[in-house]
Amino acid sequence: MPKIVNHEEQRRLVAEAALRVIQHSGLEEATVRKVAKEAGLSAGSMRHYFSTQAELYIFCMNLIAERVEERLKALPYEGSLLSDLKELLLQLLPIDEERILEMEVWFVFQSKMLAYPELKTVSSAIQNGLYKASLFVLEELEKNKRLRPGLNIEVEAEKLYALIDGLAIHRMLHPTQLSVERMDELLESHLLSLCS
Amino acid sequence: MPKIVNHEEQRRLVAEAALRVIQHSGLEEATVRKVAKEAGLSAGSMRHYFSTQAELYIFCMNLIAERVEERLKALPYEGSLLSDLKELLLQLLPIDEERILEMEVWFVFQSKMLAYPELKTVSSAIQNGLYKASLFVLEELEKNKRLRPGLNIEVEAEKLYALIDGLAIHRMLHPTQLSVERMDELLESHLLSLCS
Repeated sequence: MPKIVNHEEQRRLVAEAALRVIQHSGLEEATVRKVAKEAGLSAGSMRHYFSTQAELYIFCMNLIAERVEERLKALPYEGSLLSDLKELLLQLLPIDEERILEMEVWFVFQSKMLAYPELKTVSSAIQNGLYKASLFVLEELEKNKRLRPGLNIEVEAEKLYALIDGLAIHRMLHPTQLSVERMDELLESHLLSLCS
Repeated sequence: MPKIVNHEEQRRLVAEAALRVIQHSGLEEATVRKVAKEAGLSAGSMRHYFSTQAELYIFCMNLIAERVEERLKALPYEGSLLSDLKELLLQLLPIDEERILEMEVWFVFQSKMLAYPELKTVSSAIQNGLYKASLFVLEELEKNKRLRPGLNIEVEAEKLYALIDGLAIHRMLHPTQLSVERMDELLESHLLSLCS
């Protein structure tokens, strides 16, 4: 029976293999040969899916962003407004082993951006998505008449967005110094400070 | 006349040369040969100053931390309490070209930490210094009876510390999306939110 290969699906399989290799061995070790082996392909066929290193990195970054989006969509949103918003924000943080690994890969990609300017556009788009998630939280508070009077929504959204990324970095770099419970507590305190 | 070489001073010169090479060419390109050339030394003599790559990285990280400390000590602290505290916090952010470069190098070191666990101790100590600076801000507000009643100092210090690092990352990765003026405005708004 002939193998039916969907090009886009195959690209995704290659990118997932690349993420696994990066997670286990670091970006420097994620050579074409190793990624091909992990994906069960010949090294020669790799060029068919990604013509440059940067192209593969961009695809991987988008893959991680997609995973986050899927998690956000899968949330039940059945609790109180504040607990739902906190749950949403927790999805953007490395709260379990899988997400710490994702975040590590993400961090390595970001550090690569200084050398590969091609990554800037996708990084910028994804960071914008994270800002939008923070803005959404503020808008929901306002819509539900919970927002403390006198707060500027854009200022607060930008601060929340920075707070989240700061916590994410701290958790990833020194997981023993910032527990998931503490992140939860800090987010709750911050959300409460935004409410009247 | 014989050259009088102070070992510690020479290490510092080598580390400063390494920082320049990293800033211009990236960490991967900062080979022993290039760093030696930049420092005006022979590649062979480098081992005399740093016996491992990690040792050089650690020294470089401490050098950046020292620069930040010196900037903090050099501040005049002559304005109002809030503007002095804001100035202090701004020293922790990449507000000019020199600090953006410092921050880029710092970021690359942090991403290396995943591969070089030896860097964890120094990174942890320096991050702790940044947390202490945030805690200092909260304590000053309290000492001067400006702190809003009901706030938990440790929670607020941890949030401020994450906010600062989040802003630093955002500024470094996408400088056009977060101006110095905007960072100043966000810090001011945050400090005001901590005051009664």
